Amino acid sequence: MPEIPIHSPLLGANQAKAQLLRDRFQAQGIRVLNLISSPGAGKTTLLEKTITALAEKTKKVAVIEGDIATARDAERIAKTGAAAVQINTHGACHLDAGMIEKALGAFEEDVELLFIENVGNLVCPAEFDLGEEAKVAILSVTEGADKPAKYPLVFLQSRVVIISKIDLLPHLDLDYDAMIQDIRSINPSIEIFPLSAKTGEGMDAWLDWLRK
Amino acid sequence: MPEIPIHSPLLGANQAKAQLLRDRFQAQGIRVLNLISSPGAGKTTLLEKTITALAEKTKKVAVIEGDIATARDAERIAKTGAAAVQINTHGACHLDAGMIEKALGAFEEDVELLFIENVGNLVCPAEFDLGEEAKVAILSVTEGADKPAKYPLVFLQSRVVIISKIDLLPHLDLDYDAMIQDIRSINPSIEIFPLSAKTGEGMDAWLDWLRK
Repeated sequence: MPEIPIHSPLLGANQAKAQLLRDRFQAQGIRVLNLISSPGAGKTTLLEKTITALAEKTKKVAVIEGDIATARDAERIAKTGAAAVQINTHGACHLDAGMIEKALGAFEEDVELLFIENVGNLVCPAEFDLGEEAKVAILSVTEGADKPAKYPLVFLQSRVVIISKIDLLPHLDLDYDAMIQDIRSINPSIEIFPLSAKTGEGMDAWLDWLRK
Repeated sequence: MPEIPIHSPLLGANQAKAQLLRDRFQAQGIRVLNLISSPGAGKTTLLEKTITALAEKTKKVAVIEGDIATARDAERIAKTGAAAVQINTHGACHLDAGMIEKALGAFEEDVELLFIENVGNLVCPAEFDLGEEAKVAILSVTEGADKPAKYPLVFLQSRVVIISKIDLLPHLDLDYDAMIQDIRSINPSIEIFPLSAKTGEGMDAWLDWLRK
């Protein structure tokens, strides 16, 4: 199948803008993580639990929420006490650097750690740099062991993958080892954190990584 | 946020091609369903179980599988005895009518029922007509009750929504009634089939709808 060249100028312009953002984040000492997953893998729940845990150490955390529609995620995050801004993409399947630049104006306080929760989508967000320090992929155990091989780009580009909802493992027919093996064959240096935001199992390793 | 006009000519060309396909399917008496869901909602497993159940009534079934990478789904479907063709989109987040047109050449037998399993993605596939009679959305109970409101287009455009993996309901904190209410408020005439392809619960209503 031929490559569709229409993406190239869009991606080039985004990349330039993302690099400016990255320089700005570094100058301000803001650590930025770009969270990418399928719809319903548990990004917002993970953030709620993560922010609450980090708050005990008084880190200044903010969240930019990306969604096609609704402000539900930003409303959930605001309840944790973190600054939260919702971006509605009105149909677009990913955030881009220009959207992040506009959203930054909404933060009044100094921020140390900024989470960007991308639109729930395992394809498009992987292509768009947002100026982040690292991409964090979240893969729920309910999605099946074949997902890394079928959506390799996001796993190739992420520094961390969180295997979420591990409390459901006893109820699933999942070849967990094959899934991990596929992730490692795509990206041998990726850090893997299996956890359940619901039960708290595995959260400490992820929080330790964040605090580093 | 401004609308990005780049989509319009692409969508227009796709729509014209899709209408030609629709005329061709009707002339040949082929019923075509376009299955859309997040990654890992259970499209392929549903198709395996559906095809096996329909085979007892000797319907001639074929499947076009859309994926970014790998031929894993087509290989799984081929084991059911149905004709299966894999399309790899090499990065694109949806199938389009041109891809379907090319794939049709691979079917040698007369087909009565053609399933198109779209790329696992709750956003992009909803925008691209493939000449199908109806879109079928699949929403797994593990994805959370907020997904219809956050991804309304696919639910607006689908004639049927399958609520999959209901065997996991006892292990989840899900406001099932709110989820169904959101679906009905987006699309009051949509048919809703809750089922578990794993246990078989609810499969009969879906199979009855297919046989109509």
